Amino acid sequence: VTLDSGLDLHVELSPTRPARSLESRLRNAIVDGRLPRGTRLPPARSLAADLAISRNTVAAVYAQLNAEGWLQSRVGAGTWVSDLAAEHRQAQPPSTRATSRQSIDLRGGIPDPSGFPRRDWLAAVRAATLGAGTSELGYPDPAGTAKLRAAVSSYVARTRGVAARPDSVVVGQGFGELLALVCRALVARGARRVAVEEYGHSTHRRVVAAAGLKLVPITVDDDGADVEQLESLSVDAVLLTPAHQFPLGTPLSARRRRQLTSWADRNVAWILEDDYDGEFRYDRRAIGALQALAPDRVIYVGTASKAVAPSAGLGWAVPPAAILPDILEQRELAGGQPAALHQLALAALIDAHGYDRSVRRLRSLYRSRRTRLENCVASQLPDCELTGLSAGLQCILRLPPDTNEKHIERSAAERGLRLEGLAAFRVPGVTGSAPPAVVIGYGGPTPGQFDTALAILVECVREAIVTQHQGGRIDGSV
Amino acid sequence: VTLDSGLDLHVELSPTRPARSLESRLRNAIVDGRLPRGTRLPPARSLAADLAISRNTVAAVYAQLNAEGWLQSRVGAGTWVSDLAAEHRQAQPPSTRATSRQSIDLRGGIPDPSGFPRRDWLAAVRAATLGAGTSELGYPDPAGTAKLRAAVSSYVARTRGVAARPDSVVVGQGFGELLALVCRALVARGARRVAVEEYGHSTHRRVVAAAGLKLVPITVDDDGADVEQLESLSVDAVLLTPAHQFPLGTPLSARRRRQLTSWADRNVAWILEDDYDGEFRYDRRAIGALQALAPDRVIYVGTASKAVAPSAGLGWAVPPAAILPDILEQRELAGGQPAALHQLALAALIDAHGYDRSVRRLRSLYRSRRTRLENCVASQLPDCELTGLSAGLQCILRLPPDTNEKHIERSAAERGLRLEGLAAFRVPGVTGSAPPAVVIGYGGPTPGQFDTALAILVECVREAIVTQHQGGRIDGSV
Repeated sequence: VTLDSGLDLHVELSPTRPARSLESRLRNAIVDGRLPRGTRLPPARSLAADLAISRNTVAAVYAQLNAEGWLQSRVGAGTWVSDLAAEHRQAQPPSTRATSRQSIDLRGGIPDPSGFPRRDWLAAVRAATLGAGTSELGYPDPAGTAKLRAAVSSYVARTRGVAARPDSVVVGQGFGELLALVCRALVARGARRVAVEEYGHSTHRRVVAAAGLKLVPITVDDDGADVEQLESLSVDAVLLTPAHQFPLGTPLSARRRRQLTSWADRNVAWILEDDYDGEFRYDRRAIGALQALAPDRVIYVGTASKAVAPSAGLGWAVPPAAILPDILEQRELAGGQPAALHQLALAALIDAHGYDRSVRRLRSLYRSRRTRLENCVASQLPDCELTGLSAGLQCILRLPPDTNEKHIERSAAERGLRLEGLAAFRVPGVTGSAPPAVVIGYGGPTPGQFDTALAILVECVREAIVTQHQGGRIDGSV
Repeated sequence: VTLDSGLDLHVELSPTRPARSLESRLRNAIVDGRLPRGTRLPPARSLAADLAISRNTVAAVYAQLNAEGWLQSRVGAGTWVSDLAAEHRQAQPPSTRATSRQSIDLRGGIPDPSGFPRRDWLAAVRAATLGAGTSELGYPDPAGTAKLRAAVSSYVARTRGVAARPDSVVVGQGFGELLALVCRALVARGARRVAVEEYGHSTHRRVVAAAGLKLVPITVDDDGADVEQLESLSVDAVLLTPAHQFPLGTPLSARRRRQLTSWADRNVAWILEDDYDGEFRYDRRAIGALQALAPDRVIYVGTASKAVAPSAGLGWAVPPAAILPDILEQRELAGGQPAALHQLALAALIDAHGYDRSVRRLRSLYRSRRTRLENCVASQLPDCELTGLSAGLQCILRLPPDTNEKHIERSAAERGLRLEGLAAFRVPGVTGSAPPAVVIGYGGPTPGQFDTALAILVECVREAIVTQHQGGRIDGSV
């Protein structure tokens, strides 16, 4: 057998005129780019065997397409697609799709992808791929691979105080997928209403609603979500961010934690704990997972997206044993689960402490950005105040009363800075006062963009405050 | 700063008695195994800084646990968890969970995981991880990463004749997840009833039903699914395996392909094409994807699970442009998508032709197993017949009339061979004759197990036939 490009080529032939149809199929594939220039074709002998036609037929077709200029060949080097078709296509007018201008992202909840530990990740993939047993290469356990469940259970026990065993962990694509599966499992068990914090990710609220649950908002204050409201709402569950309210940044107070678990016990209700960035704390004591206080009522969910990279995905739930089979049932009905190979790589990263290293590195990066933000606001925006600084990937810039958040969002967008006002996170239709503020994410900008991001932020906020004051004066002069 | 293990340790302290609570938390974590033996603890200085307590407090706690034997330390080498706790736990009685006996898997549709191209995969991961731009490391496009969509569109165009562009591809976890998303999208557009082949995967049927669609079976014969039945069933869509009916192995005939697309055009109905093993063909011409005949009505779905490994997962849909946004909407509501890093690795594997190489290698492996199976049946089971041999990962062993399939399943299981009768794939409640047969998968056994698998199969089938004949004689003598 001669050299083979390894290309697998599908060609459907007319049984009566195989040469003619092979010729036109190949020509079309070359002209429309399905066979790009430089593609090596199989030797006539192998293509003939694959198609069950004679070798001479294939050789004649190759010769014809050579003569037309679509193919080139040289003895000993085989046959390949020439540049002709590509040149032909390039003569067409270019696509009208404009490339979007590079923008800087200061939105909340987005980790810095440039912090991704490429070398540690490659070492982990290598260890996982070479070390995987044959049975680990087959279809995985619907709850996740044994190695990742073991690595996660000891990691969340150690760093977040979660009461977990390997067989109490369910691996998922990330927080969103696990939220969808958990909500569907609750609906299948009869749940109808779920309380959510007044502020949060609108995408999470959409996932909850799509699962068939009615959303009931509860307010958030300086002690976190006001869980006392749950007593009168007849909800079956509550979705919370207890370590660091998203996006306000306040932790749920110790007193409210006790109230909450007492409510759940008395009402046999579920608490969904979104521990989205529990590892990132700066100058206060760590607040352990709520789950440890009530492992029978709390469905704990964490994610690797913040500590490794959004592109690595993967998350984990630690549900009470009573509801774990319902979650796996929903996983089966949703038809998918994260690739076992990818799970094994994350397990190897955690086991080799590369995950911890990444958390520490990112924590120090975010801490230094937070300090730069604090200094910047103190010196340049004295009318504003930062809150929610003690942990997490974002904080809140409180603006003077009546400042227009939307104005800041718009003028930032004009300058290439993506930024969201606090109102963007509020449950639509909720009434009551909401002081103006913008959410500042530390993670979105690359290291080189952060100072530029702050400079644009200062400009836009000052402009909004001045406009507002001028507006006030004009109103006053009428 | 001294040497640091990189461990990230969560310890929640009592504000009034920090030393006492640190001591008991660490002791508990060591005793119950959350801190396994050999784990290095952070230097007292860094742990003190993390917990905002004095260094002397931490040093005193370490000294106490040292004295108790839980920790060991040496100047210059730091402090680590001793063997004491592990020895303590090993003195407990061992787990009673029995290890299941190694079994051989001859079920249909399971690829051989020992064929996984580890070296090619590692090279692809390396290229993808080092070559990823910062923006590719963030949250991915809900339809999939640009690189994988481009690689898939040219691959399916080249090998399966699919009419695809990069922006018509939706990447998914695998066939099951894409099926779930497509079915939910159809339901959201008003679809209520879907036709399915009389034989197929029961898990797929569960996914379709869970999305809210009513299943309507159509029969399958030697020309594939009898699509003429669609004319009178008022269904909104049909789920089919046209290249190689699963598990019967018959391709959908050319005449029926035309009937089918004409039906879909006239009724504005959808065809879901499950092209689960279209790449694996042996001694007949390749049958191209149905999608090319009616790109506006066919939702094409393929998977990498067969050609790379189930542990790599990933699949792709090529839906008509009209329904693509509905599928992405369902993806958002399901909350998850495959990790971008993993997608980029598969793209690199396809681009470097490692995917094609894997298909060729597996095809030759399966072809040789098929030949061994044919020889074995011809010489040792002359009363049986093999069908569905021309392509795919499995075929059908037709048994003499009245042979009891269940008997073969059971006696195979007793000998450690997993095997399924054809009835296991039939839609429950469908009536009409179903001649006895078992499905034989080439992929499940490792290379070393295949001959053993055949030997057990022969034994079990012979036993069932003999039992049946004896049963007949006994009945006759009464």
